[in-house]
Amino acid sequence: MTSNKVLIVMGSASDLDVMKAARDRLADFGIKAEVRIASAHRTPDVVRDLALAARARGVGVIIAGAGYAAHLAGVIAAHTTLPVIGVPIASSGLLGIDALLSTVQMPPGVPVATVGIGEVGAKNAAILAAQILALSDEGLAKRLSASRATMAEDVKKTDRELTGA
Amino acid sequence: MTSNKVLIVMGSASDLDVMKAARDRLADFGIKAEVRIASAHRTPDVVRDLALAARARGVGVIIAGAGYAAHLAGVIAAHTTLPVIGVPIASSGLLGIDALLSTVQMPPGVPVATVGIGEVGAKNAAILAAQILALSDEGLAKRLSASRATMAEDVKKTDRELTGA
Amino acid sequence: MTSNKVLIVMGSASDLDVMKAARDRLADFGIKAEVRIASAHRTPDVVRDLALAARARGVGVIIAGAGYAAHLAGVIAAHTTLPVIGVPIASSGLLGIDALLSTVQMPPGVPVATVGIGEVGAKNAAILAAQILALSDEGLAKRLSASRATMAEDVKKTDRELTGA
Amino acid sequence: MTSNKVLIVMGSASDLDVMKAARDRLADFGIKAEVRIASAHRTPDVVRDLALAARARGVGVIIAGAGYAAHLAGVIAAHTTLPVIGVPIASSGLLGIDALLSTVQMPPGVPVATVGIGEVGAKNAAILAAQILALSDEGLAKRLSASRATMAEDVKKTDRELTGA
Amino acid sequence: MTSNKVLIVMGSASDLDVMKAARDRLADFGIKAEVRIASAHRTPDVVRDLALAARARGVGVIIAGAGYAAHLAGVIAAHTTLPVIGVPIASSGLLGIDALLSTVQMPPGVPVATVGIGEVGAKNAAILAAQILALSDEGLAKRLSASRATMAEDVKKTDRELTGA
Amino acid sequence: MTSNKVLIVMGSASDLDVMKAARDRLADFGIKAEVRIASAHRTPDVVRDLALAARARGVGVIIAGAGYAAHLAGVIAAHTTLPVIGVPIASSGLLGIDALLSTVQMPPGVPVATVGIGEVGAKNAAILAAQILALSDEGLAKRLSASRATMAEDVKKTDRELTGA
Amino acid sequence: MTSNKVLIVMGSASDLDVMKAARDRLADFGIKAEVRIASAHRTPDVVRDLALAARARGVGVIIAGAGYAAHLAGVIAAHTTLPVIGVPIASSGLLGIDALLSTVQMPPGVPVATVGIGEVGAKNAAILAAQILALSDEGLAKRLSASRATMAEDVKKTDRELTGA
Amino acid sequence: MTSNKVLIVMGSASDLDVMKAARDRLADFGIKAEVRIASAHRTPDVVRDLALAARARGVGVIIAGAGYAAHLAGVIAAHTTLPVIGVPIASSGLLGIDALLSTVQMPPGVPVATVGIGEVGAKNAAILAAQILALSDEGLAKRLSASRATMAEDVKKTDRELTGA
Repeated sequence: MTSNKVLIVMGSASDLDVMKAARDRLADFGIKAEVRIASAHRTPDVVRDLALAARARGVGVIIAGAGYAAHLAGVIAAHTTLPVIGVPIASSGLLGIDALLSTVQMPPGVPVATVGIGEVGAKNAAILAAQILALSDEGLAKRLSASRATMAEDVKKTDRELTGA
Repeated sequence: MTSNKVLIVMGSASDLDVMKAARDRLADFGIKAEVRIASAHRTPDVVRDLALAARARGVGVIIAGAGYAAHLAGVIAAHTTLPVIGVPIASSGLLGIDALLSTVQMPPGVPVATVGIGEVGAKNAAILAAQILALSDEGLAKRLSASRATMAEDVKKTDRELTGA
Repeated sequence: MTSNKVLIVMGSASDLDVMKAARDRLADFGIKAEVRIASAHRTPDVVRDLALAARARGVGVIIAGAGYAAHLAGVIAAHTTLPVIGVPIASSGLLGIDALLSTVQMPPGVPVATVGIGEVGAKNAAILAAQILALSDEGLAKRLSASRATMAEDVKKTDRELTGA
Repeated sequence: MTSNKVLIVMGSASDLDVMKAARDRLADFGIKAEVRIASAHRTPDVVRDLALAARARGVGVIIAGAGYAAHLAGVIAAHTTLPVIGVPIASSGLLGIDALLSTVQMPPGVPVATVGIGEVGAKNAAILAAQILALSDEGLAKRLSASRATMAEDVKKTDRELTGA
Repeated sequence: MTSNKVLIVMGSASDLDVMKAARDRLADFGIKAEVRIASAHRTPDVVRDLALAARARGVGVIIAGAGYAAHLAGVIAAHTTLPVIGVPIASSGLLGIDALLSTVQMPPGVPVATVGIGEVGAKNAAILAAQILALSDEGLAKRLSASRATMAEDVKKTDRELTGA
Repeated sequence: MTSNKVLIVMGSASDLDVMKAARDRLADFGIKAEVRIASAHRTPDVVRDLALAARARGVGVIIAGAGYAAHLAGVIAAHTTLPVIGVPIASSGLLGIDALLSTVQMPPGVPVATVGIGEVGAKNAAILAAQILALSDEGLAKRLSASRATMAEDVKKTDRELTGA
Repeated sequence: MTSNKVLIVMGSASDLDVMKAARDRLADFGIKAEVRIASAHRTPDVVRDLALAARARGVGVIIAGAGYAAHLAGVIAAHTTLPVIGVPIASSGLLGIDALLSTVQMPPGVPVATVGIGEVGAKNAAILAAQILALSDEGLAKRLSASRATMAEDVKKTDRELTGA
Repeated sequence: MTSNKVLIVMGSASDLDVMKAARDRLADFGIKAEVRIASAHRTPDVVRDLALAARARGVGVIIAGAGYAAHLAGVIAAHTTLPVIGVPIASSGLLGIDALLSTVQMPPGVPVATVGIGEVGAKNAAILAAQILALSDEGLAKRLSASRATMAEDVKKTDRELTGA
């Protein structure tokens, strides 16, 4: 079975405002993504089952977005050896610092690949997932390179417009 | 069945240096305590089983001590409605700020009663557990009052020694 | 006398915006709550009297909400051995970090059970109080379990709506 | 009655390592100081009595040193309108940031004059107390000016030694 | 000459929004206050002259409010041995943390009596100044006590309204 | 060509104390690793060339460890679409907070998979790299599962020793 | 060739809102400035080329503004020995603390002259650039002194308006 | 007169442990440096005189190192339009964060070119000063380039030793 899907998990529907940036970016790359709402604290067994079943269902990378004391990514990582990407969300009033430290400072043995806080992090989580999947998908690798080239071209265009060159 | 035991859980044997302050303080109060090593990330199912079985085994309060992105107290709280006390431990190089925020900033619905960082927090966790159990144990309530009086007397004695009064 | 009431104390009327989440949540559980405004700095003797009289008046748990250098929970805890839950409030411009540290970092001997900052913390304080009182109230214990099940079902329902399952 | 004494209060004997810098500096200025150990949490009524009685006993300024969630200065200030100087002490593992915020971020109406963390703060607390008392003590005002001149001369001497001038 | 005036200095006109709380509070107490705009960085010699001349002009306490790397209070304190109260202002985007640390963490020898950040700090600075001046002004001491009693009564009244007592 | 090697880059030889934990852990998994010293600021062109050449040389994942304003991982990520794992190192006196934020808060478009600060992060970086490579290497996936089982067994053994079970 | 131009680089067009304060201030001083958009992560080779070519094109000082994990100033400094001024921008939700630490905490050997966060920093970056260029441009030195005098006069005028003097 | 000297100022002799890294690095480049001890708070008029006289004495760049609420660089910058480089020193227990914010967050109009905390910052301050002076000193510019090449070669050599290449 090919591990070419991405599972996006978030703790509540309100996180979708941030996490849809991951979903949309994966769609741009033509990567199949499944979006699920499951809470490390309110539905821990659902989270556990999602993590345990992921590999067998063709998932290659899991993206988990959560705020506050964000345990979601770590709890998922505890139940799978698939790469887990954590997106800290600034849901509480602490700017996401609580979620960042709760996600990135994992104890030895169970890593979470943490990206930046919020929507930018969600977008980058999708790109990181694509970079991981592209290791065994040459077409995706090319789309990633093309996307990088487009980003560069966009910056250069803005520069030309500014300088009038 | 009476819920008069305290379950102390910590993620690794090295946390015992800090958490034994809780165990010893509970012993002072004559409270039965069980000390277990179980990790939210390395043995998540053990943690889950401990939490699920606690009430039926006579546990009234659970104390969980963990460092880094300290998920242990939150993960236990996800599997029980017993009061869970979290002790953030300064295992990483961030002074315990990571563990504090990972423990106290729980999302709505699943609280963790957080005490201070490290050994002082562990000691206070034991006292807090005793205060909770004392609600239905008059003898313990009296021992708590007596302990408080002793603490006060100790401060007063030090003051007298200093002032030569 | 049964200790089955909760005393909610806050430093000023403006804190009620946050602390009513605790009052309402306790009402959901059918727990009697008394809400009082008393300030550790402006009416310290009222705070002291409230703390000293609480146990005799049937109070089992005290919830204290305060902002800035939040001394309220600690000052109450200094005058009682009842469990005291502290809710840090983000009244000043420091996001509640001042109130959090002033509440959670209690010195050895006098614990405060600290929950998260603001309204989420207030709600969780009520649930924590209920968890404590439920140790000697089987009906309340069942209502807590039912509430937890409802929370889980809500998450699952949102998930089903999202996935169209 | 002249208010020309300074009352130094600290929560435990271990704080004396830091607070003796205040006592010694006051002695240099010839200011009478009384040093007391009293804890906002373990002997709150002693603290209250000290604060209430201070003015009548000739105290003009109170210096309070405390660590952790440092409530001592604020609790004293709640019981007197004498100027209260707070010295945050780095007793916990948080570098004194907890004590600083617990001391300086007082809510409206009850100020604490906060100085820096630790021994430097204790020394500066003594100088600040002297500056306050010097408003009605011309001799002290002159000693303060002389001390400032000596400090300046010390810096200049070090500079000359370095530059060989 | 009596030192019974308060000099309020701030770095720019925009700080007046915050600092007028100090001016108004001093007026309530009947204390003469002079408000000046002078910048530690843009008009350092004006600041120096204000500090050097203050005592001779009957100033007993100086209140300095500044934002960013708030040097104003420290620079004034360098040129006088009058008590200097510093009010950190949240002018930059760092919530006033920069101003707080720049004000409170004075090196040994030259203290600044720091109060809380922003308008609450400005109000408390005025009360602290009044407390200092009241040491040699019995009438003012009585007005301070009366004000404290009024604050207490206000809290009690709010409490009565809430509880319907 | 198979992308099954890991390139470990660090800014100076002193970082090897931390980063050898990554190298050793990769060796445990039988993953080929190349360790290079190259600095984003002192040898930027070497860093660029390493990044540009990595894919063609069979590198599947790059691990970059750096302290201070840690630009190394981000600069590498700017020149490749391979997954880049960043290890913040506490080289400066700021506990690694500077390196953490410099590594994790990447702007949109160019992610860095950030793990925890220091040696624990280095170890987890190796495990994360193994998890990524295991998506197309079933043998490695099994070794990862076995390693996870061993970790769990170690925790359980410690627990049994403690409880005497 | 005279090095009398300033090159202003920023990572995206949205940074212009902040960085135009630098451009406008340089224009006030009559300093030639070139504004370019180039990203350390999306167009790293453009950044490198700009840095490498700067000196030969008459640039004396480079100002780089960036947000998030702000690598731009450091990456430029890696490719030139011209003085590089870094302006941290609060683009992410972390108030610019991430950008500040990513800019100022450069490792040994490659300095970045860091100014304050945001628009105030951008303005000060321009003044700092002018101060540097003025070392070999007496006319500019005079304009800087005049500007400083005008700033002082503005503060004094505001003070006179306030005091009615 | 040529502005080719560097004036290094620090608040106390104990800062020399850190600041000698600046002095030694300047000596490596053959730049004349004068080292002075002067305190913004204890000898403010010496600091003012040093700043006012600097340009006429051939000083091109001023380096100021200070700890705690580090006002030294800002106070110097208030009295000169020469470029002032600030080195925050971790003298207090706050890791230098107080000194960093007190130095870098200057209000609009009076910049301080801030480098990193401590000895690394002192070394980089010297290099930055050299970069500034090199704008009108071709020989120095060449020595800077050579030094940069040596640094690069050192890194490459370490890399070769490690890889055995």
